[in-house]
Amino acid sequence: MTQEPVESRTLWRVQGGSSREISDWVVVEEPLEIRVEGKSLAVIMRTPGHDLELATGFCLTEGVVKSIDAIGTIRQCRSDNDGELNVVEVSLAPGVGFDHERLRRNLMASAACGVCGRASLEDLATRATPSRSSVRVRREVLQALPERLLRAQESFGRTGALHASGLFDAEGQLRVCREDVGRHNAVDKVVGRAALDGMATDEAILLVSGRTSFEILQKASVAGIPIVCAVSGPTTLAIETARAFNITLINFLRGQGMNIASRPERVIAP
Amino acid sequence: MTQEPVESRTLWRVQGGSSREISDWVVVEEPLEIRVEGKSLAVIMRTPGHDLELATGFCLTEGVVKSIDAIGTIRQCRSDNDGELNVVEVSLAPGVGFDHERLRRNLMASAACGVCGRASLEDLATRATPSRSSVRVRREVLQALPERLLRAQESFGRTGALHASGLFDAEGQLRVCREDVGRHNAVDKVVGRAALDGMATDEAILLVSGRTSFEILQKASVAGIPIVCAVSGPTTLAIETARAFNITLINFLRGQGMNIASRPERVIAP
Repeated sequence: MTQEPVESRTLWRVQGGSSREISDWVVVEEPLEIRVEGKSLAVIMRTPGHDLELATGFCLTEGVVKSIDAIGTIRQCRSDNDGELNVVEVSLAPGVGFDHERLRRNLMASAACGVCGRASLEDLATRATPSRSSVRVRREVLQALPERLLRAQESFGRTGALHASGLFDAEGQLRVCREDVGRHNAVDKVVGRAALDGMATDEAILLVSGRTSFEILQKASVAGIPIVCAVSGPTTLAIETARAFNITLINFLRGQGMNIASRPERVIAP
Repeated sequence: MTQEPVESRTLWRVQGGSSREISDWVVVEEPLEIRVEGKSLAVIMRTPGHDLELATGFCLTEGVVKSIDAIGTIRQCRSDNDGELNVVEVSLAPGVGFDHERLRRNLMASAACGVCGRASLEDLATRATPSRSSVRVRREVLQALPERLLRAQESFGRTGALHASGLFDAEGQLRVCREDVGRHNAVDKVVGRAALDGMATDEAILLVSGRTSFEILQKASVAGIPIVCAVSGPTTLAIETARAFNITLINFLRGQGMNIASRPERVIAP
């Protein structure tokens, strides 16, 4: 059983003309099965740790439930196969409906491999509404975020292979930071933690360590987050989604610079 | 209609105390629906271009068909909604069976978000056999590959947001290079092209620009590729998969160095 995000592996290191055995830290990737009302809904490849948050965030951002109140209990259990803690069972609150087949179809359609996502903004519009947040953030606050996220990351330095996601308040204080081998999982863990804590998101800033694709913006919009920042670039569909849902999208947030693709009025620049 | 991998967008550039509008290249992300025998199988978020290769590779590496011979025709058509060329229809060769429901269930299980992948190596073993390739490659040949892939990338320099995948022969000659917003899609495009061209893969080297997760190794094993290289690190499950399927896995292939996690005997080092 493992719940460590990184593990040591013996590898062969070749450098120039020499080679030797070394021990190196490797990011852990294992499947997590999410069951809702006893039925298997999805298997996610993820980095172990904060699995209840991950399942909570997944259920929220993928439309399994409309709010945290719809979740009755969430518990982690061992799989029948190998006894590992790689199953999370979600039961719904009394009276909450759940169309398993419809949801499976939706997830299937959004699934496949590569970047996952719903086929259209229209679909997203059935689950999210454009942000009406009037929050405004100073440029200097935003520029300081990547360094804060980096300092909060526990495992990145050891492997260089984990994505990080951080949720900040409008003053730039880090509220929660999570890491995962999957970019989307890191966001779901953060969203799940915020929901479990009853944390308001209508003035929150989400920062991701990599790029912003459609899926990241989809998750932010469902979670009601008005500002999304990334160290790397956006995709066209991410920009369209941000503009359609009134999300301030900031990319290439590095040093003293940033590119704002949507709703720049939330950034207070001199 | 767009089939360009990058497009120009107007953004606000903030640098220090000044801000101005700029035009920047942004990587295109759009849904592609894959239909098999007239039924919708999956929607993939991808960068347009080489869509027939992508669909071919996807069908092969995700187990829709066992070989390229099982595919009758592949054609791209416009969606009913918006008239974009975002549908690929696959018809199977005469006599080839296809269990749509079983496949949908499998894809659903591997789906969810984040890193997609089958739940287990056992499942993969039903679709792939361990490599028996006796190919051996000189260290110097491997070290030269990242620079060759970079030179072959058409769009990366303009956006910094595209993943690249290249298939090389044992002498280090680049046979095919493809880019996509999705890491897995870039591999599927390369695998699809190789299959469509009848290219042998039993002495081939796959190089990916990023990291190697389970899904990348899964696709390589199904495609019969004996050597997988990456510029970044592996996950634990990628290493396990490589070892189980006799694939030589090389990470952090940079400058004069590399880490070999599996089957180092295929690398000829002094």
